[in-house]
Amino acid sequence: MSEKKPNEIIVGRTKSIEDYVLDIITMFNQGSQEVEVKGNGFEINKVVDIYNQLVERLKEGVKLEKIDIGSEVKDKRRVSYLLLKLRRVY
Amino acid sequence: MSEKKPNEIIVGRTKSIEDYVLDIITMFNQGSQEVEVKGNGFEINKVVDIYNQLVERLKEGVKLEKIDIGSEVKDKRRVSYLLLKLRRVY
Ligand SMILES: [Zn+2]
Repeated sequence: MSEKKPNEIIVGRTKSIEDYVLDIITMFNQGSQEVEVKGNGFEINKVVDIYNQLVERLKEGVKLEKIDIGSEVKDKRRVSYLLLKLRRVY
Repeated sequence: MSEKKPNEIIVGRTKSIEDYVLDIITMFNQGSQEVEVKGNGFEINKVVDIYNQLVERLKEGVKLEKIDIGSEVKDKRRVSYLLLKLRRVY
Protein backbone atom coordinates (compact mmCIF):
# COMPACT_ATOMS: atom_id res chain seq x y z
CA MET A 1 0.00 0.00 0.00
CA SER A 2 2.43 2.62 -1.19
CA GLU A 3 -0.19 5.39 -1.21
CA LYS A 4 -0.53 5.22 2.56
CA LYS A 5 -0.25 8.68 4.08
CA PRO A 6 0.86 9.56 7.61
CA ASN A 7 -2.13 9.37 9.94
CA GLU A 8 -3.94 7.14 7.47
CA ILE A 9 -5.21 3.77 8.62
CA ILE A 10 -6.01 1.17 5.98
CA VAL A 11 -8.41 -1.26 7.62
CA GLY A 12 -7.58 -4.91 7.04
CA ARG A 13 -9.27 -8.24 7.58
CA THR A 14 -7.43 -9.69 10.56
CA LYS A 15 -7.03 -6.88 13.06
CA SER A 16 -10.00 -6.27 15.36
CA ILE A 17 -12.28 -3.24 15.49
CA GLU A 18 -11.15 -2.67 19.07
CA ASP A 19 -7.48 -2.62 18.00
CA TYR A 20 -8.15 0.02 15.37
CA VAL A 21 -10.07 2.13 17.89
CA LEU A 22 -7.08 1.97 20.25
CA ASP A 23 -4.70 2.83 17.37
CA ILE A 24 -6.71 5.95 16.58
CA ILE A 25 -6.89 7.05 20.22
CA THR A 26 -3.12 6.50 20.50
CA MET A 27 -2.51 8.63 17.39
CA PHE A 28 -4.69 11.40 18.85
CA ASN A 29 -2.89 11.16 22.19
CA GLN A 30 0.47 11.38 20.43
CA GLY A 31 -0.56 14.69 18.90
CA SER A 32 -2.29 13.83 15.61
CA GLN A 33 -5.09 16.30 14.99
CA GLU A 34 -6.56 14.31 12.10
CA VAL A 35 -6.71 10.63 11.33
CA GLU A 36 -8.00 9.13 8.09
CA VAL A 37 -9.56 5.69 8.16
CA LYS A 38 -10.07 3.85 4.89
CA GLY A 39 -11.51 0.48 3.95
CA ASN A 40 -12.16 -1.42 0.72
CA GLY A 41 -14.86 -3.95 -0.04
CA PHE A 42 -15.86 -5.99 2.99
CA GLU A 43 -13.76 -3.74 5.22
CA ILE A 44 -16.11 -0.82 4.53
CA ASN A 45 -18.53 -2.19 7.11
CA LYS A 46 -15.64 -2.45 9.57
CA VAL A 47 -14.74 1.22 9.03
CA VAL A 48 -18.24 2.23 10.16
CA ASP A 49 -18.02 -0.14 13.17
CA ILE A 50 -14.69 1.44 14.13
CA TYR A 51 -16.21 4.90 13.86
CA ASN A 52 -19.19 3.96 16.03
CA GLN A 53 -17.00 2.44 18.74
CA LEU A 54 -14.68 5.44 18.65
CA VAL A 55 -17.63 7.81 19.17
CA GLU A 56 -18.81 5.62 22.06
CA ARG A 57 -15.40 6.09 23.67
CA LEU A 58 -14.56 9.72 22.88
CA LYS A 59 -18.12 11.12 22.67
CA GLU A 60 -17.84 14.78 21.62
CA GLY A 61 -14.05 14.36 21.61
CA VAL A 62 -14.08 13.23 17.99
CA LYS A 63 -15.58 14.97 14.97
CA LEU A 64 -16.36 13.33 11.64
CA GLU A 65 -14.92 15.95 9.36
CA LYS A 66 -15.43 14.26 6.00
CA ILE A 67 -16.88 11.09 4.52
CA ASP A 68 -15.81 10.04 1.06
CA ILE A 69 -16.99 7.05 -1.00
CA GLY A 70 -15.96 5.87 -4.43
CA SER A 71 -14.02 3.21 -6.28
CA GLU A 72 -10.34 2.69 -6.96
CA VAL A 73 -8.12 0.13 -8.63
CA LYS A 74 -6.33 -2.17 -6.19
CA ASP A 75 -4.40 -5.27 -7.20
CA LYS A 76 -5.72 -4.71 -10.73
CA ARG A 77 -9.36 -4.91 -9.61
CA ARG A 78 -11.82 -2.07 -9.19
CA VAL A 79 -13.00 -1.97 -5.57
CA SER A 80 -15.27 0.29 -3.55
CA TYR A 81 -13.91 2.33 -0.69
CA LEU A 82 -15.10 4.36 2.26
CA LEU A 83 -12.81 7.00 3.72
CA LEU A 84 -13.45 8.89 6.95
CA LYS A 85 -11.54 11.94 8.08
CA LEU A 86 -11.67 12.18 11.87
CA ARG A 87 -10.62 15.16 13.91
CA ARG A 88 -9.74 15.29 17.59
CA VAL A 89 -11.81 17.86 19.45
CA TYR A 90 -10.63 19.28 22.78
CA MET B 1 -38.98 -2.14 8.39
CA SER B 2 -41.69 0.20 9.47
CA GLU B 3 -39.42 3.29 9.33
CA LYS B 4 -39.07 2.98 5.56
CA LYS B 5 -39.78 6.31 3.87
CA PRO B 6 -40.98 6.88 0.32
CA ASN B 7 -37.96 6.95 -2.01
CA GLU B 8 -35.93 5.06 0.54
CA ILE B 9 -34.26 1.82 -0.45
CA ILE B 10 -33.14 -0.55 2.30
CA VAL B 11 -30.47 -2.74 0.76
CA GLY B 12 -30.86 -6.44 1.49
CA ARG B 13 -28.79 -9.56 1.08
CA THR B 14 -30.42 -11.34 -1.82
CA LYS B 15 -31.14 -8.71 -4.46
CA SER B 16 -28.25 -7.83 -6.77
CA ILE B 17 -26.36 -4.55 -7.02
CA GLU B 18 -27.53 -4.25 -10.62
CA ASP B 19 -31.19 -4.62 -9.56
CA TYR B 20 -30.85 -1.81 -7.03
CA VAL B 21 -29.19 0.41 -9.64
CA LEU B 22 -32.12 -0.21 -11.97
CA ASP B 23 -34.61 0.48 -9.16
CA ILE B 24 -33.00 3.85 -8.49
CA ILE B 25 -32.92 4.79 -12.18
CA THR B 26 -36.60 3.80 -12.43
CA MET B 27 -37.47 5.97 -9.42
CA PHE B 28 -35.63 8.91 -10.98
CA ASN B 29 -37.38 8.33 -14.33
CA GLN B 30 -40.75 8.21 -12.57
CA GLY B 31 -40.14 11.67 -11.17
CA SER B 32 -38.34 11.19 -7.86
CA GLN B 33 -35.83 13.98 -7.34
CA GLU B 34 -34.17 12.30 -4.39
CA VAL B 35 -33.59 8.69 -3.44
CA GLU B 36 -32.13 7.49 -0.15
CA VAL B 37 -30.17 4.26 -0.07
CA LYS B 38 -29.46 2.64 3.25
CA GLY B 39 -27.62 -0.50 4.35
CA ASN B 40 -26.74 -2.15 7.65
CA GLY B 41 -23.76 -4.33 8.53
CA PHE B 42 -22.50 -6.33 5.57
CA GLU B 43 -24.86 -4.45 3.26
CA ILE B 44 -22.87 -1.24 3.83
CA ASN B 45 -20.30 -2.41 1.30
CA LYS B 46 -23.13 -3.12 -1.14
CA VAL B 47 -24.48 0.42 -0.78
CA VAL B 48 -21.11 1.81 -1.93
CA ASP B 49 -21.03 -0.69 -4.84
CA ILE B 50 -24.53 0.43 -5.86
CA TYR B 51 -23.45 4.06 -5.73
CA ASN B 52 -20.36 3.40 -7.88
CA GLN B 53 -22.35 1.50 -10.53
CA LEU B 54 -25.01 4.21 -10.54
CA VAL B 55 -22.37 6.90 -11.17
CA GLU B 56 -20.93 4.75 -13.97
CA ARG B 57 -24.36 4.74 -15.59
CA LEU B 58 -25.62 8.26 -14.97
CA LYS B 59 -22.25 10.10 -14.82
CA GLU B 60 -22.97 13.72 -13.93
CA GLY B 61 -26.70 12.85 -13.88
CA VAL B 62 -26.54 11.90 -10.22
CA LYS B 63 -25.27 13.90 -7.29
CA LEU B 64 -24.32 12.53 -3.88
CA GLU B 65 -26.08 15.05 -1.70
CA LYS B 66 -25.38 13.57 1.71
CA ILE B 67 -23.55 10.65 3.33
CA ASP B 68 -24.49 9.62 6.82
CA ILE B 69 -22.98 6.89 9.01
CA GLY B 70 -23.88 5.74 12.49
CA SER B 71 -25.49 2.96 14.45
CA GLU B 72 -29.08 2.02 15.16
CA VAL B 73 -30.98 -0.71 16.93
CA LYS B 74 -32.46 -3.29 14.58
CA ASP B 75 -34.03 -6.57 15.71
CA LYS B 76 -32.83 -5.71 19.22
CA ARG B 77 -29.18 -5.52 18.10
CA ARG B 78 -27.05 -2.41 17.57
CA VAL B 79 -25.89 -2.34 13.96
CA SER B 80 -23.88 0.09 11.85
CA TYR B 81 -25.47 1.84 8.90
CA LEU B 82 -24.52 3.87 5.87
CA LEU B 83 -27.11 6.14 4.30
CA LEU B 84 -26.70 7.95 0.99
CA LYS B 85 -28.96 10.72 -0.26
CA LEU B 86 -28.84 10.80 -4.04
CA ARG B 87 -30.24 13.56 -6.23
CA ARG B 88 -31.09 13.42 -9.92
CA VAL B 89 -29.34 16.16 -11.86
CA TYR B 90 -30.64 17.29 -15.27
ZN1 LIG C 1 -6.04 -7.49 19.13
